[in-house]
Amino acid sequence: LTLCFGSYLLPTNLRLTLPLTCVILEVILIILFAVLVEYDHETDAKLWHKHLLQHNDSNYNNDFYYRYPSFQDVHVMIFVGFGFLMTFLQRYGFSSVAFNFLIAAFALQWATLMQGFFHGMHGGKIHIGVESMINADFCTGSVLISFGALLGKTSPVQLLLMAVFEVTLFATNEYILLSILQAKDAGGSMTIHTFGAYFGLVVARVLYRPQLDKSKHKNCSVYHSDLFAMIGTIYLWMFWPSFNSAITAHGDDQHRTVMNTYYSLAACTLATFAMSSLVGPGGKLDMVHIQNAALAGGVAVGTAGEMMLTPFGSMAVGFLAGTISTLGYKFLSPVMEKKLKIQDTCGVHNLHGMPGILGAVVGAVTASLATREVYGDGSVLALRRLSPRRVYVSVCVQHVSLTSRLSSSMEDVFPEIYAGNFSASEQGVRQAISLAVTLGMALVGGVIVGFILKLPIYSGPPDTICFEDAIYWEVLTALIALPFHPGMRQLSENKKYL
Amino acid sequence: LTLCFGSYLLPTNLRLTLPLTCVILEVILIILFAVLVEYDHETDAKLWHKHLLQHNDSNYNNDFYYRYPSFQDVHVMIFVGFGFLMTFLQRYGFSSVAFNFLIAAFALQWATLMQGFFHGMHGGKIHIGVESMINADFCTGSVLISFGALLGKTSPVQLLLMAVFEVTLFATNEYILLSILQAKDAGGSMTIHTFGAYFGLVVARVLYRPQLDKSKHKNCSVYHSDLFAMIGTIYLWMFWPSFNSAITAHGDDQHRTVMNTYYSLAACTLATFAMSSLVGPGGKLDMVHIQNAALAGGVAVGTAGEMMLTPFGSMAVGFLAGTISTLGYKFLSPVMEKKLKIQDTCGVHNLHGMPGILGAVVGAVTASLATREVYGDGSVLALRRLSPRRVYVSVCVQHVSLTSRLSSSMEDVFPEIYAGNFSASEQGVRQAISLAVTLGMALVGGVIVGFILKLPIYSGPPDTICFEDAIYWEVLTALIALPFHPGMRQLSENKKYL
Amino acid sequence: LTLCFGSYLLPTNLRLTLPLTCVILEVILIILFAVLVEYDHETDAKLWHKHLLQHNDSNYNNDFYYRYPSFQDVHVMIFVGFGFLMTFLQRYGFSSVAFNFLIAAFALQWATLMQGFFHGMHGGKIHIGVESMINADFCTGSVLISFGALLGKTSPVQLLLMAVFEVTLFATNEYILLSILQAKDAGGSMTIHTFGAYFGLVVARVLYRPQLDKSKHKNCSVYHSDLFAMIGTIYLWMFWPSFNSAITAHGDDQHRTVMNTYYSLAACTLATFAMSSLVGPGGKLDMVHIQNAALAGGVAVGTAGEMMLTPFGSMAVGFLAGTISTLGYKFLSPVMEKKLKIQDTCGVHNLHGMPGILGAVVGAVTASLATREVYGDGSVLALRRLSPRRVYVSVCVQHVSLTSRLSSSMEDVFPEIYAGNFSASEQGVRQAISLAVTLGMALVGGVIVGFILKLPIYSGPPDTICFEDAIYWEVLTALIALPFHPGMRQLSENKKYL
Repeated sequence: LTLCFGSYLLPTNLRLTLPLTCVILEVILIILFAVLVEYDHETDAKLWHKHLLQHNDSNYNNDFYYRYPSFQDVHVMIFVGFGFLMTFLQRYGFSSVAFNFLIAAFALQWATLMQGFFHGMHGGKIHIGVESMINADFCTGSVLISFGALLGKTSPVQLLLMAVFEVTLFATNEYILLSILQAKDAGGSMTIHTFGAYFGLVVARVLYRPQLDKSKHKNCSVYHSDLFAMIGTIYLWMFWPSFNSAITAHGDDQHRTVMNTYYSLAACTLATFAMSSLVGPGGKLDMVHIQNAALAGGVAVGTAGEMMLTPFGSMAVGFLAGTISTLGYKFLSPVMEKKLKIQDTCGVHNLHGMPGILGAVVGAVTASLATREVYGDGSVLALRRLSPRRVYVSVCVQHVSLTSRLSSSMEDVFPEIYAGNFSASEQGVRQAISLAVTLGMALVGGVIVGFILKLPIYSGPPDTICFEDAIYWEVLTALIALPFHPGMRQLSENKKYL
Repeated sequence: LTLCFGSYLLPTNLRLTLPLTCVILEVILIILFAVLVEYDHETDAKLWHKHLLQHNDSNYNNDFYYRYPSFQDVHVMIFVGFGFLMTFLQRYGFSSVAFNFLIAAFALQWATLMQGFFHGMHGGKIHIGVESMINADFCTGSVLISFGALLGKTSPVQLLLMAVFEVTLFATNEYILLSILQAKDAGGSMTIHTFGAYFGLVVARVLYRPQLDKSKHKNCSVYHSDLFAMIGTIYLWMFWPSFNSAITAHGDDQHRTVMNTYYSLAACTLATFAMSSLVGPGGKLDMVHIQNAALAGGVAVGTAGEMMLTPFGSMAVGFLAGTISTLGYKFLSPVMEKKLKIQDTCGVHNLHGMPGILGAVVGAVTASLATREVYGDGSVLALRRLSPRRVYVSVCVQHVSLTSRLSSSMEDVFPEIYAGNFSASEQGVRQAISLAVTLGMALVGGVIVGFILKLPIYSGPPDTICFEDAIYWEVLTALIALPFHPGMRQLSENKKYL
Repeated sequence: LTLCFGSYLLPTNLRLTLPLTCVILEVILIILFAVLVEYDHETDAKLWHKHLLQHNDSNYNNDFYYRYPSFQDVHVMIFVGFGFLMTFLQRYGFSSVAFNFLIAAFALQWATLMQGFFHGMHGGKIHIGVESMINADFCTGSVLISFGALLGKTSPVQLLLMAVFEVTLFATNEYILLSILQAKDAGGSMTIHTFGAYFGLVVARVLYRPQLDKSKHKNCSVYHSDLFAMIGTIYLWMFWPSFNSAITAHGDDQHRTVMNTYYSLAACTLATFAMSSLVGPGGKLDMVHIQNAALAGGVAVGTAGEMMLTPFGSMAVGFLAGTISTLGYKFLSPVMEKKLKIQDTCGVHNLHGMPGILGAVVGAVTASLATREVYGDGSVLALRRLSPRRVYVSVCVQHVSLTSRLSSSMEDVFPEIYAGNFSASEQGVRQAISLAVTLGMALVGGVIVGFILKLPIYSGPPDTICFEDAIYWEVLTALIALPFHPGMRQLSENKKYL
C-alpha cells in the first residue's frame, strides 16, 4: 500500500511538453481560423437571409435540419464510442477516454482547415457549416483508429503530433480519392477505416517495444472495465447507420444507407457470437470479440452502403465481416505481434483493417454492377445543377410544366456514370485503384510519422510502465493493493491482444 | 484465489450449440431476405426518384427525416436501455448486455420478415424502410422484456429459440389487434409490454428451478453494478417519449404523444421515490425501485399517449403507475415466487405487466370518451387517401381552392370512428377485447414455448451456477476472492427479486 | 465487515418527510395542470388541424420536427450529463444520479407552470409544446447546477424544497432579463449558469458545515467513479451545441450557434489539458479538471453563440474559459472554502460561475458591436409578423411578387435593434445590466432560501456522514472492507474540492 510509485518516481514529465504543445497548436489554429475561415451561406446571418430572399426559400430548408441529427450521432461515436471502447484496460481508463477526448478536440479543428483547403476555397476563404463539421469528425475518427493501435504506449504529446500529420495525410488521400479518382466512399471504408488502421499499424511497427512484456500484466481487462468498454461498443453499433449515411445525398440515398448498415451490423453480430464460441476454450465467448468484431459489419458497408446493395447483400457482407474479424482476433493478431512485430493494442487490424479492405472490394464490385435499370434513369434535362429543394421552389413559383426535371439516384450515387463520363466497370476500377492509393499513403505516411514519433523528446512511457494511468495522471496507484488485481482476467499467451 | 472453476470445470458447453444456432438462423434469414425483401418506395433508388418526378416532391419530404431521429432513440432504448438495465447483477454484466445484444440483433431481422408478412406483401415482396425498422425494434423490445424474467437462468441458445417463437407470436397478436380488431396501441402497452411480460412470466413458470436458492448469493447487486444499471434506466426514461410517438401520425399526434409521455414519466418518478421511501426499512430508498418503477409511467401511457389524454391526465396515470409498480416490487414479487413459483429476475411483472394492463385500460377508457369536439371535425372531402405532403404539393401545383381538404386528427387517431364505422364506445370495447386477446396469446404461447425450452439440449446452466458469467464467458472467477464480495449488498429474503 | 452502520444506526429518517413532500408536491402539480395547462396549437388535435386548414400548411411543418432533436439532446444533458458528472464521489453515486433524477423530474413540471405564467397566458391558460419542454429543461439545469454546490450535504427533501424556490426565482429573473430588459441569452450564460451557480454558492455558504472535515475521507473519488463521471462530462460536451441552439430562431441562427459552440468547446479542451498539466504535481493531469473545466467553453458562449461571434472568436473565448476554469479549480476553490466558508462540492463556481460571467460579458460586447452590415439588412416590408413558413405558403398560393419580404437575421437575433428601438450599444448596456440583475437575484434569493433550508426538519445528514449513500439508501456499507478503499485516490489538502 505504501508502494506508491505513481506520483513521484516516474521518469516521465509532461509539465513542459504537453502545455507547450497544446498552447502552440491552439494558438496556431485560432490564428489560421481568423485568417481563413468564414461561415458558409447557411450559417452566415447575411448570406442565408440573402439566399432566403433570392430563392424564396424557407428557414426549414436550411441543411442544418437534415444533417445535424446525423452529425450528433457521429459525434457520439467519436467521443463516447471510441473513447469508452478503449477503456477495457484495467488501469488505462483515464487515458483512454481523456486522450481520445484531447486528440479528437484538436483533430476536428485541424481537419476543418485541411479539408477546407482541399475541398475548395471560396475567394481565399474556407466556408464551414454542418457538413464540414461531419467531415471533420470523420477525419478525427481515422486518427482515433490509429490511436487504438498505439493505446497504452504513447504520450499525449506523441498523439497530438501524430494527429497533426495524420489529418494532413487523410485530407490529401481523401482529395485524391474523391476528387481526382472520382471514387465513392461515403462511409469511409477506405478513407477512414483502411487508412486509419494501416497508418496506425505501421506507426506501431516503427515504435515496436521489444521489452513490452514487462507491462504485460497490465495489458488486460478486469470485470468492470469490460463493461465500460461495452458502452463504447453499443454506441458505435447503434449509430453506425448514421455514420455511413451522414454525408450521402438526401432522400433515398441516406435512407437506403441507413438500412443497409442496420442489417449488415445485425448479421455481423450473429456471426461474431458464432465464431467467438466456436474458437473459444470450452465454447466460451470472449468479450474482446463481442466488443470489436460485432462492429465490423458497419466498416464493411462503408463504401457500398449508399449503393443498391440490397438488404440481403448487406447481411451477407456483414456476416462475412464478423467472421473474418473474430478469426483475426483469435489467430492473426498473435502472429502479427510475433512475426511482424506489430503490437496492436486494440486489434484495429481486425476491426478496421481487414473489414475496411473488404468494404472497399465490395464497393468496387457493387459499383461495377451499377445499371440505369436499378438506379433509375431520371430522364435528363435542365435544372440538374440546382439542388432538389431549389427545383421545388422554382416549380412552385414559376408554374413550369412538370416534365422530366428531377435527377435520378444514379446521378446522386454515381454522377460520372450518369453523365456518361465513365462506364460502371470503370467506376469499379477506380474504386479498386483508390484502395491501392489508400494503402500506399498509409504505409508510406506511417513510416515517416513513426520515425518522427520515435524521437525521445515526447515524454513517452518506458516499456515497464505502459498501459498505466499513473504515469500521466494524479492517481494513487499501489499496484499490490489494486482492488481488481486478484480477480483480474489473466489472458493466455495468444490472447494478450485485446 | 486458486479455486478457479470458471474456465475448466463447468459442465455447460456452448461450442456446438451456439455456433450452430447462430449460423443456421442467419443463413435462413439471408435466404429469406433474398427471396422476399425489397426496398420500399422511399428507400429504392428508382422508385423514389419516380415518386419525386410524379408528385413533384422534394427529397426533404422523404419520411426518413421525420422518423429516423425517433428510430435512433428507440434503438438506444433497445440496446443501451434494456442492455444496461439488466447489468445490476454482480456477476452477470457480460451476459446481460451481450445476450441482450445478440437476441436483439437476431430478433430485429426476424421481426422484419414476420411483421412484413402480416402487414401486407406487395406483389409477394416485403417492403422495408424506416417505419419497418421501428416496428422491428418494437417487436425486439417485447422479446427483451421476456428476457428480463429469465435473466441469469437461460443459455443464449434458449434465448434465441425463444425469440424465434415470440417474434412470430408477437406479429400474430399485433395483426389481430391492429388490423382485425382495429385497436390503437402506438406505444405498445398491450402489444409490447403486456405481451412481453406475461409471455416471459409463463415461460419462467414452466422453467421453474426449485434449487435456485443455491445461486442466491449471486442474485444480487454490488455498488458499481447498480450504477451501470442506472445508465439503462436513465436512457429508457429519457427516450420513452420517442418510443411512444415513433409510429404515430405526423404532426400534432407525434408532438402530443411526446408531451403526454414526458409528463407521465415525471409524475411517475416522484411517486416512485415517495413509495420506495415509505415502504423501505428506516425510510431508505431502494435502487431496485428507482431503476425500474420510475419507468412505469412510460408503459402506462403507451396506448393513450397519442390520444387527447391531457397533460394532467398523463400525470395522474404516471403517478398511479409508479405507485403500483413500486408496491409490486415490495409486496407482490415475493408472493409470486413463493406461491406461484414464478422466478421473475428483473421483476418485469411490476415494470411491464401491471403497468401494461393499466395502460390498456386507460387507453380503452380514453378511446371511449373520444368526441369530434375534442379531436376536430376536419370537414371531410376528397384527398383523404393522400398523405398530407401530397395534398400540400397538389395544392401548390394545381391552385385548387382551399376549401376543407385536410383531415382531422380524429382520422389520424381513430380512423374508424372518423369514418363512422364505429362509435367511440365500440372503439373502447375493442381496446378491452384486445387486452384479453393479448393476455390469452401470451399465456398459451408462453406455456408451449416454455416446454420447448425445457428440453435439456440447450446448454442451460445448472441451478448452482445461475446468475454467473463464468459459465458462458472467458473470465477468471475465483469467487472467494471476488473483489466486490465483501461489500456486496445482501438482500433480505423478500428483496431477492430484483 | 460486521460494522454495518448503514441500515440501522443512522439518525436520519426519510420515511415521513420524503413521501409527504413528494406526494404533496405532485398532487399540487396535477391540480394546477388540470386547471391551468392546455396543449398549444401545434399539440392540440383540433387547433393544429384548424391551423393546417387555414394556412394550407403541412404536418411536416409542425415545429416538433425542428425542435425535438435538440430537446432530446438537452434532455440527455440534464439526466445523464449532470447526473453522471456528479457520480465522481466514491460512495455517493446512487444519490448523485438518483437525486439528480428526482429533482429534475419535479423541477421540469414546476418550471412548466412558472415559465408559462411569466411567458404569457392565453385566456387564463398556459399553452405547452416542445418549446416549453426545452425551457423547462433549461430551468431544471439551473437547479442542478446549484445541486452541484451542495452535493453530499443535503437531503432529497431539502433539494426538492430548494427546487420549489429556485425555479420560481429563475422564472422571475428570466422574465426580467428577456421580456423587460430585452436582453438576449439563448444558451443561458446568465439565466442558467450564472444564476444557478451563485444561487447555489450562497446557499452553500448559509449551510456552511464547520465539522465537514469529519467526512473528508469520503469526499474524494475512486478509480471507477471517475470513469462514471466521464460519461457525464462527455455527454455534456457533445450536446452543448444543441443546448445553446435549442431555442434560437430557425435557420442560420441555430446553425451558427451550433458551430460556435462546437469550436469553443474544442479550443477549451486543449486549454484545459494544457493548464491541468502545467499546474499539476510533476506535470500530471487531474481528472477533476478534465471532467469539468473542459466544459467551460460551452458556458462561455451561451449568450454570444447565436451572434456573429465568428469561429475564431468562439475559439478564443473557449480557450480563455478553459484556462480560467482550470486555474479556478486549482487556486481559487481552496481559498473560497477557507476564507469565504463556501464548501462547493463540485466546484460549480469554476465551471458555471466564472465562465457564466465571462459569457455574459462576451455577449454584451458582441451585441454592442452588431451592425446591419454583418447581420444583413433584410429590406423591411410587410409579412414580418408571419413566421417564414407562413410566408412561404402564402407565396406559393397567392403568387405574390417576390420583392423584399423576408426578415433579416438582425431581426431574429436583435429584434429591438432591427426595429430601431435600441442602438447596438444600448443592447450591450442592457446585456450588462442583465448580468447585474442576475447576480443580485441569485445572492438575495440564495440567502433567503439558504436560511429556509437550514431549519433542522428536513432529514439532512450529520457532518460525520456526508458524501455517503448509506444514509439514504439500502446499501450494506462496511467501510472497513470497502472494496475500493485501499486504492482510493487520496487528495491533498488543496485538492479536496472536486
